[in-house]
Amino acid sequence: MPVKYVLFDIDDTLFPSTDFAQLARKNAIRAMVDMGLEKDPDILYRKLLTIIDREGSNYEGHFDRLCKSLRLKKPARFVAAAVAAYHNTKMSIQPFPGVARSLMKLKESGYMLYVATNGSTIKQWDKLIRLRIAFYFDDVFVSEEMGRAKSKKFFNDVLRRLDAEPGECVMVGDKEAADILPAKELGITTVKVRQGREAREKTSADYRIGHAGEIRSVLERL
Amino acid sequence: MPVKYVLFDIDDTLFPSTDFAQLARKNAIRAMVDMGLEKDPDILYRKLLTIIDREGSNYEGHFDRLCKSLRLKKPARFVAAAVAAYHNTKMSIQPFPGVARSLMKLKESGYMLYVATNGSTIKQWDKLIRLRIAFYFDDVFVSEEMGRAKSKKFFNDVLRRLDAEPGECVMVGDKEAADILPAKELGITTVKVRQGREAREKTSADYRIGHAGEIRSVLERL
Repeated sequence: MPVKYVLFDIDDTLFPSTDFAQLARKNAIRAMVDMGLEKDPDILYRKLLTIIDREGSNYEGHFDRLCKSLRLKKPARFVAAAVAAYHNTKMSIQPFPGVARSLMKLKESGYMLYVATNGSTIKQWDKLIRLRIAFYFDDVFVSEEMGRAKSKKFFNDVLRRLDAEPGECVMVGDKEAADILPAKELGITTVKVRQGREAREKTSADYRIGHAGEIRSVLERL
Repeated sequence: MPVKYVLFDIDDTLFPSTDFAQLARKNAIRAMVDMGLEKDPDILYRKLLTIIDREGSNYEGHFDRLCKSLRLKKPARFVAAAVAAYHNTKMSIQPFPGVARSLMKLKESGYMLYVATNGSTIKQWDKLIRLRIAFYFDDVFVSEEMGRAKSKKFFNDVLRRLDAEPGECVMVGDKEAADILPAKELGITTVKVRQGREAREKTSADYRIGHAGEIRSVLERL
């Protein structure tokens, strides 16, 4: 069955989100110190990571919490400096090299392209817009809007929405549990992107690539 | 009594906030249309202003509300596009010409400089940081932190915090009710900045200038 539909994860698949998050957090810490916070930046950074681990990365009050844990009398200037530096960095996200050109080539070849991602609908759209690749996709499926995280059921819902057979689909992503296993179980061809936390872990994916900019090398072989 | 303390409002005093807010909102509307929203930009802009009037300018969900009022089925992409364009514009705020140089000259001359502003503490600090003028100020008084909006009581609290006599202070701002009247009643010298909604209205201020970059012309006459 010829492949017609290609589904992409966003974070660490279309752009280096782990690298950008790390840089954004370090820039935020530097900005707090620059604003006059007399603490060691490395200690602050480790404190921040502890808070993020505990509260989840989508929690909005990381820097508030960090300032509270330091018992600062006048935290607003430090929170404001951190958030400004954090957002400045996150606003400069770039796709992996070749991603935009590859997506265009796939569209030219007649593929239908989709995003399948976990997260907040508006935040994931914000990334596509800032990466300037939103228009390559025929539709975007975000867990929040779909009512469930990526899973067999999620991908089944996507197949139904596309009116597609699993054999016509390819899923590209970096996370074994979210991107590879559930799609593979349904019979979707899976492509593991070697990025982020699981870059070096074993995978049951059918193919492996460095990032989404290399996807054509796989599709040419199908 | 020689003037020692100069207090500045932020919005439409240190930078053209009305102009930037208007541009940011228009850019947001353009980004929604660019994202595929098939509506007239002028009508969308007027709808947005109605929402802002009703909810207040510090309300966080203007674009959500706008999309709801249009009964869009998939609003996330439009909200994300609007918020991204809005923030991109607001991040590029610049002081009025000569403001940074004037503040530096005043510091050199031995004045103590302060901010006295209504609003959210973090948002007002964010502006000072983005304008790159935070370090000129010896302290920053924001209504949220002070527990009350600018008023006679607010300025009295500021005087107490500075351990200052009214005759040693100058207040620079654009709003008659918030900046000029209460300060003047206390005996603080008042300087009206001709910007924003009240640019052309009558004032009881002791002096008038175009924007804060012109403050030295007043101080030289005191």
